[in-house]
Amino acid sequence: MLGYRNAAQSARVTGKVDQATQADLIRVAHLLADAARPVTLAHFRTSGLVADTKAAAHFDPVTIADRAAEQAMRAVLAQERPDDGIFGEEFGQTPGSTGLTWVLDPIDGTRGYISGTPTWGVLIAVGTADGPVYGIIDQPYIGERFAGGFGQADVTGPMGTVPLATLAPRALDQAILLSTFPEIGSPAQMAAFQDVARQVRLTRYGMDCYGYALLAAGQVDLVIEAGLNAYDVQAPIAVIKAAGGIVTDWSGAPVHQGGQVLAAANPDIHAAALDILRKHG
Amino acid sequence: MLGYRNAAQSARVTGKVDQATQADLIRVAHLLADAARPVTLAHFRTSGLVADTKAAAHFDPVTIADRAAEQAMRAVLAQERPDDGIFGEEFGQTPGSTGLTWVLDPIDGTRGYISGTPTWGVLIAVGTADGPVYGIIDQPYIGERFAGGFGQADVTGPMGTVPLATLAPRALDQAILLSTFPEIGSPAQMAAFQDVARQVRLTRYGMDCYGYALLAAGQVDLVIEAGLNAYDVQAPIAVIKAAGGIVTDWSGAPVHQGGQVLAAANPDIHAAALDILRKHG
Repeated sequence: MLGYRNAAQSARVTGKVDQATQADLIRVAHLLADAARPVTLAHFRTSGLVADTKAAAHFDPVTIADRAAEQAMRAVLAQERPDDGIFGEEFGQTPGSTGLTWVLDPIDGTRGYISGTPTWGVLIAVGTADGPVYGIIDQPYIGERFAGGFGQADVTGPMGTVPLATLAPRALDQAILLSTFPEIGSPAQMAAFQDVARQVRLTRYGMDCYGYALLAAGQVDLVIEAGLNAYDVQAPIAVIKAAGGIVTDWSGAPVHQGGQVLAAANPDIHAAALDILRKHG
Repeated sequence: MLGYRNAAQSARVTGKVDQATQADLIRVAHLLADAARPVTLAHFRTSGLVADTKAAAHFDPVTIADRAAEQAMRAVLAQERPDDGIFGEEFGQTPGSTGLTWVLDPIDGTRGYISGTPTWGVLIAVGTADGPVYGIIDQPYIGERFAGGFGQADVTGPMGTVPLATLAPRALDQAILLSTFPEIGSPAQMAAFQDVARQVRLTRYGMDCYGYALLAAGQVDLVIEAGLNAYDVQAPIAVIKAAGGIVTDWSGAPVHQGGQVLAAANPDIHAAALDILRKHG
C-alpha cells in the first residue's frame, strides 16, 4: 500500500491523457485481459489447486493461476508498454517513467475461484496519481468483460456488447446491496454495514468483484466492503464511474488507494448510504 | 407440499423406469430446459422487472419470466408427455396417469435473478413417489447445464461437456460449505448451521441453486439450507446423486419433499456434518 502510494505520487502525469494514448491504453488493457483468460481458465474447476495462505489471520488463498496470469499480463506490458509502471497483486511494483501505472489483480476473488463460482475476475486498471482512468473487470468463465473509461462503458458477453449504465435513484428501502462476506472488517465496521443492510430491500453476499460489475450494469444499487487494496478497487472505480456511478470510502473520500469501499449507482443512493456509515465513523 | 405428497403417494410407478422411458425422459428434460432458456433470458438484466411478494414474511419475488418459463415448459410437456403429472412452483399441480411427475422451478433464485447474478437456475426433475430419477440444473446466462440420472452425470457449458463427480472425502476443517443466506431458518436452525460453518475451512453465501451444481461438479463439499420446497430440491438431488453425492434432511432422512437440506459430496463429509446438525436437533 505505502509503496504504491509513493510510486503514484512521484508520477509525472497526474491528470490528462491524450487521445492517442487513450486508444493505446484501451487496446493494451484488452490485450491483458485476453492474455489472462486462458491462464486463469486452465486452472479453474480443476482439482488439487494450490492455495497458499498469505496471512495467518485472513484466509487468502493464492493459486498457481493467480501468479501465472499476472506473469502473462506483465509479458504483454513488457512488449506493448514497457515504460509504464506496474503494480500487481502477486509481484508488487515495477517502476515506470510515463507517469502511468497498470494496477493488476490477476484473480480477484480467489475464494470464489477455489469454490468454482464464476464471481472472481481479472482486474485491470491503468491510471495516474489521481486514480484510474480506464478499467476492465473480466470474468473468463462466463466470457464476460466489463470495461469503462474515457467516456465509454460497456459489457461484452453472452448477450453481445451492451452499454453499461448504473441505476437511477430509488429509495434506500428499494435498494439492493451487495457485499462479499457477512463478516465485514472490524466489529465497528460490521455494525455500520449492518445498519445499511437493515434499511435496504435486499442484501446479497458472495459476489466478489462481480458485484461491482453488476453495479455498473444497473443491476444493484450499492456495494459496500472493507479492507480492499488498490488492486482490488481501481478497475471497479474506473468501470463504475464510466457507467455513471460513484465510488468513495466510507467517509466520502477517494478510495483508489484502497480501504473501506462504498460504491453507489448514483449520488442520491450514495448520500443515503454515506449518511448511515458516517454515524458509525 | 401436502398436495404434492398426496399426488406422489398415489403414483402407480414407484420404482423402476424402463430403458425406453429413460431415454424419453432425458430427451424431454432437455427440451424443457431449452424452452425455458430464451424466456428467462429475455427478462434477465432488464429494468423494471415485476417482483411480487408472495408471502409478507419472506421476500420472495416472482417475475414475469418465472411464470412465462413455467408456461413454456408446460407447453412442451403437453406436447411430449401429456400423461405425466406436473408440479410447478408457479402453477401448482396437474395430475397425471403414468406415475411420473415433472417437478419444475422455472427460476430458482429469483432474488439472484433480480440482482443480475448468474446463480439462479431452471430446475427440472422427473420422478416417482420415491423421489427424482433425473434432473437438470440449467443456468441460461452462462449457458451451462448440469444434468444427472440413470447412471449419467455431466455438465455442458463454456468448457464443453465434462463429467460430474463430487469431491473425495477430506477433513471437515478442509471443507468448503455453501449456503444462500447467512440468515438460515429459525434461530435454532441458524445455530446448527453456524456450528458447521465454524468448523469448515470456508463458508460462502449467495449461490442459490448454483451451489448444488458446484457440489455435483466437485468444487465444494457441502451445501446446507433450510426451508426448501420439493421443486427447489428435486433437481439438485438427482444431479448430486448421479455425481456421487448424498442429499438428505438434517436428520439424515429423505428430503425430496422439501425441508432442511444437507447436500454432501460423499458419505464421510455427510456424516461429519450430520453429527453436528443432529446435536441441535
